[in-house]
Amino acid sequence: MQNIKNYIEQHKQRMLDELFELLRFPSVSADPKYKPDVLNTAAFVAKKLSDAGADNVEICQTAGYPVVYGEKIVDPARPTVLVYGHYDVQPPDPLELWHTPPFEPTVRNGKVFARGACDDKGQFYMHVKAFELMMQTDQLPCNIKFMIEGEEEVGSDNLGTFVKQNKDRLKADVILISDTAMISMEHPSLETGLRGLSYLEVEVTGPNRDLHSGVYGGAVANPATILAKLIASLHDDNNRIAIPGFYDDVIDLTDAERKAINNAPYDNNEYKADLGVDELWGEAGYSTFERTGTRPTLEVNGIWGGYIGEGAKTVLPSKASAKISMRLVPNQSSEVITKLFTDHFLKITPPFVKVKVTPHHGGEPVVTPTNSIAYQAAQKAIAESFGKEPIPTRGGGSIPIVALFEAELGIKTVLMGFGLDSDNLHSPNEKYDLFNYYKGIETIPLFYKHFTELSAK
Amino acid sequence: MQNIKNYIEQHKQRMLDELFELLRFPSVSADPKYKPDVLNTAAFVAKKLSDAGADNVEICQTAGYPVVYGEKIVDPARPTVLVYGHYDVQPPDPLELWHTPPFEPTVRNGKVFARGACDDKGQFYMHVKAFELMMQTDQLPCNIKFMIEGEEEVGSDNLGTFVKQNKDRLKADVILISDTAMISMEHPSLETGLRGLSYLEVEVTGPNRDLHSGVYGGAVANPATILAKLIASLHDDNNRIAIPGFYDDVIDLTDAERKAINNAPYDNNEYKADLGVDELWGEAGYSTFERTGTRPTLEVNGIWGGYIGEGAKTVLPSKASAKISMRLVPNQSSEVITKLFTDHFLKITPPFVKVKVTPHHGGEPVVTPTNSIAYQAAQKAIAESFGKEPIPTRGGGSIPIVALFEAELGIKTVLMGFGLDSDNLHSPNEKYDLFNYYKGIETIPLFYKHFTELSAK
Repeated sequence: MQNIKNYIEQHKQRMLDELFELLRFPSVSADPKYKPDVLNTAAFVAKKLSDAGADNVEICQTAGYPVVYGEKIVDPARPTVLVYGHYDVQPPDPLELWHTPPFEPTVRNGKVFARGACDDKGQFYMHVKAFELMMQTDQLPCNIKFMIEGEEEVGSDNLGTFVKQNKDRLKADVILISDTAMISMEHPSLETGLRGLSYLEVEVTGPNRDLHSGVYGGAVANPATILAKLIASLHDDNNRIAIPGFYDDVIDLTDAERKAINNAPYDNNEYKADLGVDELWGEAGYSTFERTGTRPTLEVNGIWGGYIGEGAKTVLPSKASAKISMRLVPNQSSEVITKLFTDHFLKITPPFVKVKVTPHHGGEPVVTPTNSIAYQAAQKAIAESFGKEPIPTRGGGSIPIVALFEAELGIKTVLMGFGLDSDNLHSPNEKYDLFNYYKGIETIPLFYKHFTELSAK
Repeated sequence: MQNIKNYIEQHKQRMLDELFELLRFPSVSADPKYKPDVLNTAAFVAKKLSDAGADNVEICQTAGYPVVYGEKIVDPARPTVLVYGHYDVQPPDPLELWHTPPFEPTVRNGKVFARGACDDKGQFYMHVKAFELMMQTDQLPCNIKFMIEGEEEVGSDNLGTFVKQNKDRLKADVILISDTAMISMEHPSLETGLRGLSYLEVEVTGPNRDLHSGVYGGAVANPATILAKLIASLHDDNNRIAIPGFYDDVIDLTDAERKAINNAPYDNNEYKADLGVDELWGEAGYSTFERTGTRPTLEVNGIWGGYIGEGAKTVLPSKASAKISMRLVPNQSSEVITKLFTDHFLKITPPFVKVKVTPHHGGEPVVTPTNSIAYQAAQKAIAESFGKEPIPTRGGGSIPIVALFEAELGIKTVLMGFGLDSDNLHSPNEKYDLFNYYKGIETIPLFYKHFTELSAK
């Protein structure tokens, strides 16, 4: 382990400079205007994989943004780890809330602030640097494959096809992903599950044009008012989702599972203080971290209609819209939920407006096994580098592709994330602690060591 | 009357060219970026008043946009008519829905399309041209004063002060306004009332930053969801406004009044077809035109929050806002209603969000007398030019300043409008029929004739 620490110490600055280079690309996959930047990011990642020592590096074209592939086969008889990550990032808006520009990484008290610092550039790049380290110090104990995509933030629409078409090339014993969080550096943890996702857009149309709210107010339905009523009806008084059948496939946790989650060293008061809210909100009967980790949710991600400019316009709008997404838990199906939502929303639409529901994207929930060799290797690696056994947790986020890997490739995943919930993922001022970055680079080679050793037994 | 028609016939094209000049100014008072254009519009109006023969023309500065004043005193012993209008217009957005540019007037099948074509440039300019006509044909029978303001679309914030400071200059026997609509040219009508207005903006704040909807979804209240619930609660199942005390000051119409309104030759099916809706909506127990003309309403004029750009962003927003306005009917007070709304909204705000309510502007409702000399003069003028008695109607719109004129100057108003509800006021493709424009110029001098004759009796 000493030679790992030494190598990181010697190359600390360069490893950071390279991350900065990566973070300067505004690789926003959701917005077409960033297309050239997203493509340049893919080229950069490919270059860095080659530099680190990967063979057969390829920028694999898809119907959307390319997947960057690279591999190092030390011995076909040895086990193989497939590293997954994504080089695309969320849109940076609202821009005005950033303290420093989202695509000009800045270090403030030991943290690098930039869009993608944690999600997922900072985290997948740890694997590139850990790979370099293992190559340079001649301690890569097994085979490694990289699959870094550019559409995770928009639903990985084309990765499924890529995986189907590259089953042989992607053959591996485990998929290793760092795109999740730990409770804290004092309380290292390993996520054992992810929520699925169903993301839709709804558009409510009232009159065929914007109207004078005085001349027509009271005579015709206001689509913004109706949209509000429709959205309001989607949660009941216990903040449960009021879509018939929504919970039918949810498997309730065992008392033991609930106990484990509630024993995790979380602090509701710190949590409230960090978010600046007086009270938390959520489904009655579940603790905060049961709700985020193990219960499905429905959130309005965006809403708009009518006049939203300066001053006052007395208009009765023609249309009002909302982006709505649901997080799903194990045994729920994105497709089923998308249909349930759509049917319900159309069903509750009153006759004086028209509604259009457009699915954006979805993903299936997953639970990762905690009894696998790979999971045990991750536990040992973290215990060794942090000096503490990791706590198993359930993550609230979604990496839709994980379920697909399992279905298509028959490979389980290990979620060895080094981020923090408070890293402002998808928010202004996204950050990643340099401590976590280097700690990740230090921990990853230990995973390879233990995984290879345990596999040999 | 023949000489009126002849004069209009001779100067038809010039009267239209001048209106086009006026319509080309993007005099949007709500948006500061149009300030120079608004000021240029005032200068143009002043010039045209002088050209038409007005004396003491002045661009009167206020704390906001100026009021253009002009007068012609033929004989202090004669009655005086004070003409009110406004040269500012509503914002043109949504721009993409205009078939031709909003500030490049275009004539299509006998209608001029432009922002302000009807509200109120096309309508107040009829008075300037009718004044010119009376001067040129030497038939101005009484004194006339013009007060054309530039802040009507943003609540006439500074006109109150101007009126207080100019009571002598504004002394008159009646205020004549063309800023309202007729049922149709086949069914000429005269509005006998206007609704008041209370316009506010609400902002709901949840977490102190936009959050990842997966990491935090289910743990903290979503301000867009809460705003939707708050807005949804503002109407009950009968579409009545659910703010305690909201209807306390509303005076119910007499059966005779309801009968008169419901006898007006409106057609619900044409109305629905024009708006492209299958069903109308509104307060239970009242007909469509009772609801728009005589009942108070609450409308969402704009709503926004979270990610409203292209594609999908899985964010749990920090803030969500709405612009909300209420139309008030006689005996309701804008100030009282604004307070009722604010108190109620704060009261129903749940503890897991914070709410800010900001009043924009307001205005009081009015009923104009139908037994006054001025009203009878308007009836006679319309009967003479249209060959039909006008039908008395109640308008749904608001001209907040009318109540103030009555309070400050002690003068009643006659609402002799020549627009149509279907003129797309405040909407894309606002229009004004050339027929109505010329018909107004023809009718106005007849008003002066009858008003002077009746006053002499």
